[in-house]
Amino acid sequence: MPSPDSERPVDFPPSEKTRVRRLHRRARYDRESAYAILDSGVLCHVGYVIDGQPYVTPTAYWREDDRVYWHGSSASRMLRRVKEGVPACFTVAMLDGVVLARSGFHHSVNYRSLMAFGRAEAVEAEAEKIRSLDVFIERLTPGRAAEIRPPTSQEIKATTVLRMKLDEVAVKIRNGPPVDDEEDYALDVWAGVVPVRTVIGTPEDDPRLKPGVAAPGYLQAIRINAQADD
Amino acid sequence: MPSPDSERPVDFPPSEKTRVRRLHRRARYDRESAYAILDSGVLCHVGYVIDGQPYVTPTAYWREDDRVYWHGSSASRMLRRVKEGVPACFTVAMLDGVVLARSGFHHSVNYRSLMAFGRAEAVEAEAEKIRSLDVFIERLTPGRAAEIRPPTSQEIKATTVLRMKLDEVAVKIRNGPPVDDEEDYALDVWAGVVPVRTVIGTPEDDPRLKPGVAAPGYLQAIRINAQADD
Repeated sequence: MPSPDSERPVDFPPSEKTRVRRLHRRARYDRESAYAILDSGVLCHVGYVIDGQPYVTPTAYWREDDRVYWHGSSASRMLRRVKEGVPACFTVAMLDGVVLARSGFHHSVNYRSLMAFGRAEAVEAEAEKIRSLDVFIERLTPGRAAEIRPPTSQEIKATTVLRMKLDEVAVKIRNGPPVDDEEDYALDVWAGVVPVRTVIGTPEDDPRLKPGVAAPGYLQAIRINAQADD
Repeated sequence: MPSPDSERPVDFPPSEKTRVRRLHRRARYDRESAYAILDSGVLCHVGYVIDGQPYVTPTAYWREDDRVYWHGSSASRMLRRVKEGVPACFTVAMLDGVVLARSGFHHSVNYRSLMAFGRAEAVEAEAEKIRSLDVFIERLTPGRAAEIRPPTSQEIKATTVLRMKLDEVAVKIRNGPPVDDEEDYALDVWAGVVPVRTVIGTPEDDPRLKPGVAAPGYLQAIRINAQADD
């Protein structure tokens, strides 16, 4: 069981941007809570600004120590913009349930989310890019980096890897049953939580899979968006 | 089966912001594809800018005709900013699979995503707010709006409802097996897709549920992030 919120350390001191102003009980600023979300999810949303227009681009990410990483084609508009070191926002959110209360006002969702502000930098050295991309592959499928065909220099050049230090970070989590107005508990209305979970299906062989190649065991261990008690 | 991409109408003519420059085969600009994603998802990410800093806030949304809606506390920083009519970005993304190729370079994810640019406006009239919030509740749980305790004027005042017209919209979808370099198909490496799906768990009664109140039938029909062929 997680410790009560009051016992959690403040590893990421709240700033003007990350202080959760409403529903304080949902806020956390400790590293353990942040890393648990980051290591559970796969998809992030990166926010950046071009000519005053915000863009929100979904992409896969991974974490190493106190940094989050994401990558893509060196031709990507998002990566070309964000690697300039402009202010960015990195958000991960997972839907854990639909919370049905006895009034519409108290309907809600259960979720885990993390918002981080910072400026990203490009990983430039080829060896470091290869190493960090291996971490990305090993994260969900440990052992696979050594099985696949190694990257070529041209592929590494065509890939931009960005990273951002976790510095200004806010975690928000809602879980548990609805919280209704006291007088509404007497109503004849069903209330509760409809859980939402991410599940991994049966791996599908590539139609062009070479005959005799078996599915590796690590496919069975993949977990995405899992909660601590899953 | 969806029609080939070349047969899809261009309902949202691509702009400088929404034209997908790379991997054109993943891009769609037709209303049917956009609505299918919007009506399947629950969580969006809203991007907005305050003092040059991008923010990406996850929140629940719903669609009515050619508008997307989201809501929250009138005290929310996101809603207070976005209701000013500043440029916003509305993004929905769902992870459908992990695509394991024979080289790291061709690893990918299957996903459905929609990015919309525009300026949101607040729904001001109380009757219209109540009506649109009912649509939100009815969307996942049809029949529930008439079962719950009706909203009070104070609750409606405390709730901001925003909507944004779908105008500049880009849909990107990747599905199917990995696409490897031709010579890599001869390698003894497993390749294929690990499907990722969202499932709805068994509804959990509120611990304070009034004795004798049964779980309504609509709970069994809830689908989130479902694909057309699910």
